Amino acid sequence: MAKDHQTLRTGTVRDVRTAIRSGDYRSHTAGLGLGFLQTNLAILPQDFALDFMRYCQRNPKPCPLVGVSDTGDPMMRTLGRDIDIRTDVPAYNIYRDGRLAETVTDISALWRDDLVAFALGCSFTFERALIEADIPVWHIENDSTVPMFRSSIDTVPAGPFRGKMVVSMRSVARDSVAAVTDISRRFPLAHGAPVHAGDPAAIGIAEVTRPDWGDPAPVLPGHVPVFWACGVTPQVALEAAGAPLCITHKPGHMLITDIPEDAEVPVLPPEKTP
Amino acid sequence: MAKDHQTLRTGTVRDVRTAIRSGDYRSHTAGLGLGFLQTNLAILPQDFALDFMRYCQRNPKPCPLVGVSDTGDPMMRTLGRDIDIRTDVPAYNIYRDGRLAETVTDISALWRDDLVAFALGCSFTFERALIEADIPVWHIENDSTVPMFRSSIDTVPAGPFRGKMVVSMRSVARDSVAAVTDISRRFPLAHGAPVHAGDPAAIGIAEVTRPDWGDPAPVLPGHVPVFWACGVTPQVALEAAGAPLCITHKPGHMLITDIPEDAEVPVLPPEKTP
Repeated sequence: MAKDHQTLRTGTVRDVRTAIRSGDYRSHTAGLGLGFLQTNLAILPQDFALDFMRYCQRNPKPCPLVGVSDTGDPMMRTLGRDIDIRTDVPAYNIYRDGRLAETVTDISALWRDDLVAFALGCSFTFERALIEADIPVWHIENDSTVPMFRSSIDTVPAGPFRGKMVVSMRSVARDSVAAVTDISRRFPLAHGAPVHAGDPAAIGIAEVTRPDWGDPAPVLPGHVPVFWACGVTPQVALEAAGAPLCITHKPGHMLITDIPEDAEVPVLPPEKTP
Repeated sequence: MAKDHQTLRTGTVRDVRTAIRSGDYRSHTAGLGLGFLQTNLAILPQDFALDFMRYCQRNPKPCPLVGVSDTGDPMMRTLGRDIDIRTDVPAYNIYRDGRLAETVTDISALWRDDLVAFALGCSFTFERALIEADIPVWHIENDSTVPMFRSSIDTVPAGPFRGKMVVSMRSVARDSVAAVTDISRRFPLAHGAPVHAGDPAAIGIAEVTRPDWGDPAPVLPGHVPVFWACGVTPQVALEAAGAPLCITHKPGHMLITDIPEDAEVPVLPPEKTP
Protein backbone atom coordinates (compact mmCIF):
# COMPACT_ATOMS: atom_id res chain seq x y z
CA MET A 1 0.00 0.00 0.00
CA ALA A 2 1.43 3.36 -0.99
CA LYS A 3 2.79 5.30 1.99
CA ASP A 4 3.13 9.06 2.22
CA HIS A 5 5.95 11.06 3.76
CA GLN A 6 3.81 12.24 6.66
CA THR A 7 2.95 8.66 7.70
CA LEU A 8 6.55 7.48 7.49
CA ARG A 9 7.91 10.38 9.56
CA THR A 10 6.83 8.59 12.71
CA GLY A 11 8.05 5.18 11.54
CA THR A 12 11.25 3.40 12.46
CA VAL A 13 14.15 3.07 10.04
CA ARG A 14 12.98 -0.47 9.36
CA ASP A 15 9.43 0.73 8.59
CA VAL A 16 10.79 3.25 6.11
CA ARG A 17 13.14 0.79 4.38
CA THR A 18 10.38 -1.82 4.22
CA ALA A 19 8.05 0.68 2.52
CA ILE A 20 10.82 1.60 0.08
CA ARG A 21 11.75 -2.02 -0.64
CA SER A 22 8.16 -3.02 -1.33
CA GLY A 23 7.67 -0.06 -3.67
CA ASP A 24 5.15 1.60 -1.34
CA TYR A 25 7.34 4.71 -0.96
CA ARG A 26 9.39 6.26 -3.77
CA SER A 27 9.88 9.87 -2.74
CA HIS A 28 12.61 11.86 -0.98
CA THR A 29 13.99 10.85 2.42
CA ALA A 30 14.54 14.26 4.10
CA GLY A 31 13.11 14.11 7.62
CA LEU A 32 12.69 10.32 7.63
CA GLY A 33 14.51 7.90 9.96
CA LEU A 34 15.55 10.83 12.13
CA GLY A 35 18.71 10.24 14.11
CA PHE A 36 20.14 7.73 11.64
CA LEU A 37 22.80 8.30 9.00
CA GLN A 38 21.52 8.82 5.47
CA THR A 39 23.90 8.36 2.56
CA ASN A 40 24.56 9.11 -1.08
CA LEU A 41 25.10 6.09 -3.29
CA ALA A 42 27.46 5.17 -6.13
CA ILE A 43 27.62 1.71 -7.70
CA LEU A 44 30.44 0.87 -10.12
CA PRO A 45 32.03 -2.12 -11.82
CA GLN A 46 34.98 -3.49 -9.84
CA ASP A 47 37.43 -2.31 -12.53
CA PHE A 48 36.70 1.25 -11.38
CA ALA A 49 36.35 0.54 -7.67
CA LEU A 50 39.94 0.95 -6.47
CA ASP A 51 40.36 4.31 -8.23
CA PHE A 52 36.99 5.53 -6.98
CA MET A 53 37.89 4.52 -3.44
CA ARG A 54 41.19 6.40 -3.80
CA TYR A 55 39.23 9.40 -5.09
CA CYS A 56 37.03 9.32 -1.98
CA GLN A 57 40.04 8.90 0.33
CA ARG A 58 41.75 11.91 -1.27
CA ASN A 59 38.62 14.08 -1.20
CA PRO A 60 37.05 13.22 2.15
CA LYS A 61 35.07 16.45 2.49
CA PRO A 62 32.97 16.08 -0.69
CA CYS A 63 33.18 12.24 -0.67
CA PRO A 64 33.06 10.93 2.91
CA LEU A 65 33.06 7.15 2.45
CA VAL A 66 30.90 5.42 5.05
CA GLY A 67 30.38 1.97 3.56
CA VAL A 68 31.57 -0.31 0.73
CA SER A 69 30.00 -3.61 -0.30
CA ASP A 70 31.90 -6.73 -1.20
CA THR A 71 32.18 -7.15 -4.96
CA GLY A 72 28.91 -8.64 -6.26
CA ASP A 73 27.24 -8.56 -2.82
CA PRO A 74 24.15 -6.29 -2.82
CA MET A 75 23.91 -6.27 0.99
CA MET A 76 25.45 -3.28 2.79
CA ARG A 77 26.48 -5.38 5.80
CA THR A 78 28.42 -2.75 7.74
CA LEU A 79 25.59 -0.18 7.54
CA GLY A 80 22.60 -2.24 8.65
CA ARG A 81 21.23 -5.65 9.47
CA ASP A 82 19.20 -6.05 6.27
CA ILE A 83 20.04 -3.44 3.63
CA ASP A 84 19.66 -4.64 0.04
CA ILE A 85 21.11 -1.89 -2.12
CA ARG A 86 19.09 -3.12 -5.14
CA THR A 87 15.72 -2.23 -3.59
CA ASP A 88 16.19 -0.11 -0.46
CA VAL A 89 16.73 3.31 -2.04
CA PRO A 90 13.58 5.11 -3.28
CA ALA A 91 14.95 5.99 -6.73
CA TYR A 92 18.15 5.47 -8.71
CA ASN A 93 19.85 7.30 -11.60
CA ILE A 94 21.46 5.00 -14.17
CA TYR A 95 24.49 6.39 -16.01
CA ARG A 96 25.89 4.72 -19.13
CA ASP A 97 29.28 5.89 -20.43
CA GLY A 98 29.08 8.86 -18.05
CA ARG A 99 25.63 10.05 -19.18
CA LEU A 100 22.32 9.85 -17.33
CA ALA A 101 20.30 7.21 -19.18
CA GLU A 102 17.25 6.62 -16.97
CA THR A 103 15.76 6.85 -13.49
CA VAL A 104 14.31 3.71 -11.88
CA THR A 105 13.02 2.59 -8.48
CA ASP A 106 14.62 -0.88 -8.37
CA ILE A 107 17.94 -2.08 -9.80
CA SER A 108 17.54 -5.84 -9.22
CA ALA A 109 17.55 -6.48 -12.97
CA LEU A 110 20.76 -4.49 -13.39
CA TRP A 111 22.74 -6.08 -10.56
CA ARG A 112 25.89 -7.98 -11.59
CA ASP A 113 28.57 -10.04 -9.92
CA ASP A 114 31.23 -7.39 -10.60
CA LEU A 115 29.44 -4.41 -9.04
CA VAL A 116 30.63 -2.61 -5.91
CA ALA A 117 28.33 -0.26 -3.96
CA PHE A 118 29.71 2.81 -2.16
CA ALA A 119 27.76 4.79 0.46
CA LEU A 120 28.86 8.39 1.09
CA GLY A 121 27.80 10.64 3.97
CA CYS A 122 25.42 13.52 3.26
CA SER A 123 24.57 16.95 4.63
CA PHE A 124 21.33 15.94 6.36
CA THR A 125 23.42 14.99 9.40
CA PHE A 126 25.03 18.38 10.07
CA GLU A 127 21.88 20.30 9.06
CA ARG A 128 19.99 18.53 11.83
CA ALA A 129 22.75 19.50 14.27
CA LEU A 130 22.51 23.15 13.13
CA ILE A 131 18.74 23.19 13.63
CA GLU A 132 19.15 21.65 17.08
CA ALA A 133 21.55 24.50 17.89
CA ASP A 134 18.79 26.98 16.87
CA ILE A 135 20.60 27.99 13.70
CA PRO A 136 17.97 28.41 10.97
CA VAL A 137 18.53 26.64 7.63
CA TRP A 138 16.69 28.62 4.96
CA HIS A 139 16.13 25.91 2.34
CA ILE A 140 14.66 23.56 4.95
CA GLU A 141 12.36 26.23 6.37
CA ASN A 142 11.26 27.00 2.82
CA ASP A 143 10.91 23.38 1.75
CA SER A 144 13.32 23.72 -1.16
CA THR A 145 16.54 22.03 -2.25
CA VAL A 146 19.84 23.52 -1.09
CA PRO A 147 21.55 25.62 -3.83
CA MET A 148 24.65 23.94 -5.28
CA PHE A 149 27.46 25.39 -7.42
CA ARG A 150 30.37 24.13 -9.46
CA SER A 151 33.29 25.89 -7.71
CA SER A 152 36.80 26.62 -8.99
CA ILE A 153 38.27 24.33 -6.30
CA ASP A 154 40.07 21.35 -7.84
CA THR A 155 39.54 17.95 -6.33
CA VAL A 156 42.52 15.60 -6.04
CA PRO A 157 42.28 13.20 -9.00
CA ALA A 158 42.53 9.40 -8.82
CA GLY A 159 42.66 7.45 -12.07
CA PRO A 160 39.81 8.64 -14.31
CA PHE A 161 38.02 10.41 -11.43
CA ARG A 162 38.57 14.18 -11.37
CA GLY A 163 36.81 17.52 -11.58
CA LYS A 164 35.92 20.69 -9.71
CA MET A 165 34.37 20.51 -6.26
CA VAL A 166 30.63 21.08 -6.10
CA VAL A 167 29.65 23.15 -3.06
CA SER A 168 26.34 23.81 -1.34
CA MET A 169 25.50 27.27 0.06
CA ARG A 170 23.69 28.17 3.27
CA SER A 171 23.05 31.75 4.39
CA VAL A 172 24.43 32.19 7.93
CA ALA A 173 24.17 35.20 10.26
CA ARG A 174 27.58 36.86 10.50
CA ASP A 175 27.88 36.18 14.24
CA SER A 176 26.92 32.52 13.81
CA VAL A 177 29.62 31.59 11.28
CA ALA A 178 32.11 30.45 13.91
CA ALA A 179 29.50 28.31 15.68
CA VAL A 180 28.31 26.80 12.40
CA THR A 181 31.91 25.96 11.52
CA ASP A 182 32.51 24.30 14.90
CA ILE A 183 29.28 22.31 14.73
CA SER A 184 29.71 21.01 11.20
CA ARG A 185 33.39 20.21 11.78
CA ARG A 186 32.19 17.61 14.32
CA PHE A 187 30.70 15.61 11.43
CA PRO A 188 33.63 14.53 9.24
CA LEU A 189 31.41 11.85 7.66
CA ALA A 190 28.91 14.55 6.62
CA HIS A 191 31.21 16.99 4.77
CA GLY A 192 32.73 18.51 7.94
CA ALA A 193 33.54 22.22 8.28
CA PRO A 194 32.75 24.67 5.46
CA VAL A 195 35.30 25.02 2.65
CA HIS A 196 34.64 28.76 2.35
CA ALA A 197 32.67 31.61 3.95
CA GLY A 198 32.22 34.99 2.29
CA ASP A 199 32.88 36.27 -1.23
CA PRO A 200 31.49 33.68 -3.68
CA ALA A 201 33.86 34.93 -6.41
CA ALA A 202 36.83 33.72 -4.35
CA ILE A 203 35.82 30.16 -5.21
CA GLY A 204 34.69 30.90 -8.75
CA ILE A 205 30.99 31.52 -8.16
CA ALA A 206 29.82 34.45 -10.27
CA GLU A 207 26.21 34.71 -9.14
CA VAL A 208 25.27 33.28 -5.74
CA THR A 209 21.54 33.47 -6.42
CA ARG A 210 21.84 31.33 -9.58
CA PRO A 211 22.84 27.82 -8.51
CA ASP A 212 23.97 25.11 -10.95
CA TRP A 213 21.83 22.55 -9.10
CA GLY A 214 19.01 22.84 -6.55
CA ASP A 215 16.84 25.87 -5.91
CA PRO A 216 17.90 29.53 -5.58
CA ALA A 217 18.15 30.81 -2.01
CA PRO A 218 18.85 34.32 -0.74
CA VAL A 219 21.81 35.53 1.30
CA LEU A 220 19.82 37.30 4.01
CA PRO A 221 20.66 40.78 5.37
CA GLY A 222 23.45 40.58 7.94
CA HIS A 223 24.30 37.10 6.66
CA VAL A 224 27.32 35.57 4.93
CA PRO A 225 27.14 32.88 2.25
CA VAL A 226 28.80 29.76 3.70
CA PHE A 227 29.88 26.95 1.38
CA TRP A 228 30.28 23.27 2.15
CA ALA A 229 31.76 20.46 0.05
CA CYS A 230 28.79 18.72 -1.57
CA GLY A 231 27.87 15.13 -2.38
CA VAL A 232 27.22 16.06 -6.01
CA THR A 233 31.02 16.26 -6.44
CA PRO A 234 31.45 12.49 -6.86
CA GLN A 235 28.62 12.51 -9.40
CA VAL A 236 30.61 15.00 -11.52
CA ALA A 237 33.73 12.83 -11.11
CA LEU A 238 31.73 9.73 -12.08
CA GLU A 239 30.54 11.48 -15.23
CA ALA A 240 34.16 12.41 -16.02
CA ALA A 241 35.27 8.80 -15.56
CA GLY A 242 32.69 7.62 -18.08
CA ALA A 243 32.29 4.11 -16.72
CA PRO A 244 30.12 1.92 -18.96
CA LEU A 245 27.68 1.58 -16.05
CA CYS A 246 27.28 3.65 -12.91
CA ILE A 247 24.26 3.77 -10.62
CA THR A 248 23.65 6.56 -8.11
CA HIS A 249 20.72 7.50 -5.89
CA LYS A 250 18.36 10.09 -7.35
CA PRO A 251 19.26 13.33 -5.50
CA GLY A 252 17.33 13.65 -2.24
CA HIS A 253 16.34 9.97 -2.38
CA MET A 254 18.93 8.57 -0.01
CA LEU A 255 19.83 5.29 1.63
CA ILE A 256 18.74 5.29 5.30
CA THR A 257 21.12 3.22 7.41
CA ASP A 258 20.97 1.65 10.88
CA ILE A 259 23.97 3.75 11.98
CA PRO A 260 23.13 6.39 14.64
CA GLU A 261 24.13 9.88 13.47
CA ASP A 262 26.35 10.33 16.51
CA ALA A 263 28.19 7.02 16.09
CA GLU A 264 31.96 7.39 16.32
CA VAL A 265 32.44 5.12 13.29
CA PRO A 266 29.87 4.12 10.65
CA VAL A 267 30.21 0.38 11.17
CA LEU A 268 27.87 -2.10 12.84
CA PRO A 269 29.70 -4.79 14.75
CA PRO A 270 29.73 -8.08 12.80
CA GLU A 271 26.80 -10.41 13.50
CA LYS A 272 27.58 -13.16 15.96
CA THR A 273 27.73 -16.55 14.32
CA PRO A 274 25.81 -18.99 16.53
CA MET B 1 76.79 11.68 7.91
CA ALA B 2 74.97 9.63 10.51
CA LYS B 3 72.47 11.66 12.53
CA ASP B 4 71.31 10.88 16.05
CA HIS B 5 67.82 11.24 17.50
CA GLN B 6 68.82 14.16 19.72
CA THR B 7 70.10 16.21 16.76
CA LEU B 8 67.02 15.54 14.64
CA ARG B 9 64.57 16.49 17.42
CA THR B 10 65.15 20.16 16.60
CA GLY B 11 65.03 19.62 12.82
CA THR B 12 62.15 20.25 10.44
CA VAL B 13 60.13 17.43 8.91
CA ARG B 14 62.18 17.91 5.74
CA ASP B 15 65.47 17.64 7.68
CA VAL B 16 64.30 14.38 9.24
CA ARG B 17 63.09 12.86 5.97
CA THR B 18 66.29 13.94 4.19
CA ALA B 19 68.38 12.21 6.86
CA ILE B 20 66.25 9.09 6.53
CA ARG B 21 66.34 9.11 2.71
CA SER B 22 70.11 9.45 2.60
CA GLY B 23 70.55 6.61 5.09
CA ASP B 24 71.94 8.92 7.77
CA TYR B 25 69.12 8.07 10.19
CA ARG B 26 67.62 4.59 10.59
CA SER B 27 66.13 4.58 14.08
CA HIS B 28 62.67 5.17 15.58
CA THR B 29 60.68 8.34 14.89
CA ALA B 30 58.99 8.97 18.27
CA GLY B 31 59.43 12.64 19.19
CA LEU B 32 60.62 13.67 15.70
CA GLY B 33 58.81 16.10 13.37
CA LEU B 34 56.64 17.21 16.29
CA GLY B 35 53.24 18.54 15.24
CA PHE B 36 53.10 16.52 12.04
CA LEU B 37 51.18 13.33 11.37
CA GLN B 38 53.21 10.12 11.53
CA THR B 39 51.83 6.99 9.92
CA ASN B 40 52.03 3.23 9.79
CA LEU B 41 52.75 1.75 6.36
CA ALA B 42 51.48 -1.21 4.33
CA ILE B 43 52.48 -1.86 0.72
CA LEU B 44 50.66 -4.55 -1.25
CA PRO B 45 50.25 -5.76 -4.84
CA GLN B 46 47.24 -4.17 -6.55
CA ASP B 47 45.40 -7.53 -6.59
CA PHE B 48 45.03 -7.17 -2.81
CA ALA B 49 44.53 -3.40 -2.68
CA LEU B 50 40.74 -3.13 -3.03
CA ASP B 51 40.11 -5.71 -0.30
CA PHE B 52 42.68 -4.12 1.99
CA MET B 53 41.09 -0.71 1.46
CA ARG B 54 37.69 -2.22 2.29
CA TYR B 55 39.24 -3.76 5.41
CA CYS B 56 40.51 -0.35 6.50
CA GLN B 57 37.15 1.31 5.75
CA ARG B 58 35.34 -1.30 7.83
CA ASN B 59 37.79 -1.12 10.73
CA PRO B 60 38.57 2.59 10.95
CA LYS B 61 39.64 2.54 14.61
CA PRO B 62 42.54 0.06 14.22
CA CYS B 63 43.15 0.99 10.54
CA PRO B 64 42.59 4.73 10.00
CA LEU B 65 43.52 5.23 6.35
CA VAL B 66 45.22 8.58 5.77
CA GLY B 67 46.84 8.12 2.36
CA VAL B 68 46.96 5.76 -0.63
CA SER B 69 49.40 5.93 -3.54
CA ASP B 70 48.52 5.45 -7.17
CA THR B 71 49.35 1.93 -8.35
CA GLY B 72 53.07 1.77 -9.13
CA ASP B 73 53.72 5.36 -7.97
CA PRO B 74 56.14 5.46 -5.00
CA MET B 75 55.35 9.10 -4.22
CA MET B 76 52.78 9.75 -1.46
CA ARG B 77 51.46 12.88 -3.15
CA THR B 78 48.57 13.67 -0.81
CA LEU B 79 50.73 13.43 2.33
CA GLY B 80 53.68 15.63 1.38
CA ARG B 81 55.48 17.53 -1.33
CA ASP B 82 58.32 15.05 -1.77
CA ILE B 83 57.69 11.73 -0.02
CA ASP B 84 59.24 8.71 -1.72
CA ILE B 85 57.89 5.69 0.10
CA ARG B 86 60.86 3.56 -1.11
CA THR B 87 63.43 5.52 0.92
CA ASP B 88 61.70 7.86 3.38
CA VAL B 89 60.88 5.40 6.18
CA PRO B 90 63.79 4.45 8.48
CA ALA B 91 63.23 0.69 8.33
CA TYR B 92 60.87 -1.75 6.61
CA ASN B 93 59.66 -5.27 7.33
CA ILE B 94 59.31 -7.48 4.25
CA TYR B 95 56.66 -10.22 4.41
CA ARG B 96 56.52 -13.04 1.89
CA ASP B 97 53.45 -15.29 1.86
CA GLY B 98 52.37 -13.74 5.16
CA ARG B 99 55.65 -14.35 6.98
CA LEU B 100 58.31 -11.85 8.03
CA ALA B 101 61.26 -12.51 5.72
CA GLU B 102 63.66 -9.64 6.38
CA THR B 103 64.09 -6.08 7.65
CA VAL B 104 65.68 -3.50 5.36
CA THR B 105 66.26 0.28 5.28
CA ASP B 106 65.45 0.89 1.60
CA ILE B 107 62.96 -0.86 -0.69
CA SER B 108 63.96 0.69 -4.02
CA ALA B 109 65.08 -2.68 -5.34
CA LEU B 110 61.74 -4.27 -4.37
CA TRP B 111 59.48 -1.60 -5.88
CA ARG B 112 57.20 -2.79 -8.70
CA ASP B 113 54.65 -1.28 -11.07
CA ASP B 114 51.80 -3.14 -9.37
CA LEU B 115 52.44 -2.02 -5.78
CA VAL B 116 50.09 0.25 -3.82
CA ALA B 117 51.22 2.02 -0.62
CA PHE B 118 48.81 2.65 2.25
CA ALA B 119 49.53 5.06 5.13
CA LEU B 120 47.56 4.53 8.36
CA GLY B 121 47.30 6.91 11.32
CA CYS B 122 49.15 6.05 14.54
CA SER B 123 48.84 6.67 18.26
CA PHE B 124 51.65 9.24 18.49
CA THR B 125 49.08 11.92 17.63
CA PHE B 126 46.68 11.36 20.53
CA GLU B 127 49.49 10.60 22.98
CA ARG B 128 50.91 14.06 22.33
CA ALA B 129 47.45 15.55 22.98
CA LEU B 130 47.22 13.61 26.27
CA ILE B 131 50.61 14.87 27.40
CA GLU B 132 49.67 18.44 26.50
CA ALA B 133 46.58 17.98 28.71
CA ASP B 134 48.91 16.99 31.58
CA ILE B 135 47.85 13.35 31.48
CA PRO B 136 50.96 11.22 32.05
CA VAL B 137 51.69 8.39 29.60
CA TRP B 138 53.70 5.76 31.46
CA HIS B 139 55.50 4.07 28.57
CA ILE B 140 56.68 7.43 27.20
CA GLU B 141 57.90 8.61 30.62
CA ASN B 142 59.72 5.29 30.98
CA ASP B 143 61.11 5.24 27.43
CA SER B 144 59.55 1.89 26.58
CA THR B 145 57.16 0.59 23.92
CA VAL B 146 53.43 0.63 24.67
CA PRO B 147 52.12 -2.85 25.70
CA MET B 148 49.93 -4.44 23.01
CA PHE B 149 47.57 -7.43 23.23
CA ARG B 150 45.65 -9.67 20.87
CA SER B 151 42.06 -9.07 22.09
CA SER B 152 38.93 -11.19 21.61
CA ILE B 153 37.31 -8.40 19.55
CA ASP B 154 36.65 -9.51 15.97
CA THR B 155 37.49 -7.11 13.18
CA VAL B 156 35.10 -6.89 10.22
CA PRO B 157 36.60 -9.05 7.46
CA ALA B 158 37.14 -8.01 3.83
CA GLY B 159 38.28 -10.63 1.34
CA PRO B 160 41.31 -12.43 2.81
CA PHE B 161 41.85 -9.77 5.49
CA ARG B 162 40.54 -10.75 8.91
CA GLY B 163 41.53 -11.40 12.51
CA LYS B 164 41.20 -10.22 16.09
CA MET B 165 41.77 -6.58 16.98
CA VAL B 166 45.13 -5.79 18.55
CA VAL B 167 44.81 -3.22 21.34
CA SER B 168 47.33 -1.05 23.17
CA MET B 169 47.01 -0.40 26.92
CA ARG B 170 47.67 2.79 28.87
CA SER B 171 47.22 3.11 32.63
CA VAL B 172 44.87 6.05 33.34
CA ALA B 173 43.86 7.58 36.70
CA ARG B 174 40.24 6.66 37.40
CA ASP B 175 39.13 10.31 37.39
CA SER B 176 40.91 11.00 34.09
CA VAL B 177 39.24 8.26 32.04
CA ALA B 178 36.44 10.52 30.79
CA ALA B 179 38.87 13.27 29.78
CA VAL B 180 41.19 10.79 28.06
CA THR B 181 38.22 9.41 26.14
CA ASP B 182 37.11 12.87 25.04
CA ILE B 183 40.61 13.90 23.98
CA SER B 184 41.40 10.79 21.96
CA ARG B 185 37.97 10.76 20.35
CA ARG B 186 38.97 14.05 18.70
CA PHE B 187 41.56 12.13 16.65
CA PRO B 188 39.61 9.70 14.45
CA LEU B 189 42.69 9.34 12.21
CA ALA B 190 44.76 8.23 15.22
CA HIS B 191 42.56 5.38 16.57
CA GLY B 192 39.96 7.67 18.20
CA ALA B 193 38.34 6.90 21.55
CA PRO B 194 39.32 3.81 23.56
CA VAL B 195 37.59 0.52 22.68
CA HIS B 196 37.49 -0.56 26.34
CA ALA B 197 38.31 0.67 29.85
CA GLY B 198 38.47 -1.63 32.86
CA ASP B 199 38.52 -5.42 33.23
CA PRO B 200 41.03 -6.79 30.69
CA ALA B 201 39.26 -10.19 30.73
CA ALA B 202 36.17 -8.58 29.19
CA ILE B 203 38.11 -8.29 25.93
CA GLY B 204 39.96 -11.58 26.26
CA ILE B 205 43.15 -10.41 27.94
CA ALA B 206 44.19 -12.88 30.63
CA GLU B 207 47.22 -11.10 32.06
CA VAL B 208 47.49 -7.35 31.60
CA THR B 209 51.15 -7.25 32.64
CA ARG B 210 52.16 -9.75 29.94
CA PRO B 211 51.68 -8.09 26.54
CA ASP B 212 51.84 -9.96 23.23
CA TRP B 213 53.89 -7.11 21.70
CA GLY B 214 55.80 -4.18 23.22
CA ASP B 215 57.04 -3.87 26.78
CA PRO B 216 55.19 -4.69 30.02
CA ALA B 217 53.71 -1.69 31.83
CA PRO B 218 51.99 -1.49 35.22
CA VAL B 219 48.41 -0.49 35.96
CA LEU B 220 49.19 2.05 38.67
CA PRO B 221 47.31 2.31 42.01
CA GLY B 222 44.02 4.20 41.55
CA HIS B 223 44.31 3.66 37.79
CA VAL B 224 42.24 1.76 35.21
CA PRO B 225 43.70 -0.07 32.21
CA VAL B 226 42.42 1.71 29.09
CA PHE B 227 42.61 -0.01 25.71
CA TRP B 228 42.81 1.56 22.25
CA ALA B 229 42.57 -0.06 18.82
CA CYS B 230 46.15 -0.53 17.65
CA GLY B 231 47.99 -0.22 14.35
CA VAL B 232 49.38 -3.74 14.73
CA THR B 233 45.88 -5.01 13.83
CA PRO B 234 46.38 -4.55 10.06
CA GLN B 235 49.71 -6.37 10.35
CA VAL B 236 47.88 -9.41 11.78
CA ALA B 237 45.30 -9.15 8.97
CA LEU B 238 48.09 -8.86 6.40
CA GLU B 239 49.69 -12.03 7.78
CA ALA B 240 46.29 -13.78 7.55
CA ALA B 241 45.89 -12.69 3.92
CA GLY B 242 49.24 -14.24 3.02
CA ALA B 243 50.00 -11.98 0.06
CA PRO B 244 53.12 -13.11 -1.85
CA LEU B 245 54.68 -9.74 -0.98
CA CYS B 246 53.78 -7.20 1.66
CA ILE B 247 55.99 -4.43 3.00
CA THR B 248 55.32 -2.61 6.28
CA HIS B 249 57.27 -0.11 8.36
CA LYS B 250 59.33 -1.63 11.17
CA PRO B 251 57.31 -0.89 14.35
CA GLY B 252 58.17 2.54 15.76
CA HIS B 253 59.92 3.52 12.52
CA MET B 254 57.15 5.57 10.95
CA LEU B 255 56.57 7.72 7.91
CA ILE B 256 56.62 11.42 8.90
CA THR B 257 54.26 13.43 6.69
CA ASP B 258 53.81 17.13 5.91
CA ILE B 259 50.24 17.01 7.31
CA PRO B 260 49.77 19.05 10.54
CA GLU B 261 48.41 16.88 13.36
CA ASP B 262 45.42 19.18 13.75
CA ALA B 263 44.49 19.20 10.04
CA GLU B 264 40.81 18.51 9.45
CA VAL B 265 41.66 16.10 6.60
CA PRO B 266 44.99 14.40 5.86
CA VAL B 267 45.31 15.75 2.32
CA LEU B 268 47.59 18.44 0.92
CA PRO B 269 45.93 20.54 -1.75
CA PRO B 270 47.09 19.50 -5.24
CA GLU B 271 50.11 21.37 -6.57
CA LYS B 272 49.23 24.17 -8.94
CA THR B 273 50.22 23.41 -12.50
CA PRO B 274 51.89 26.53 -13.92
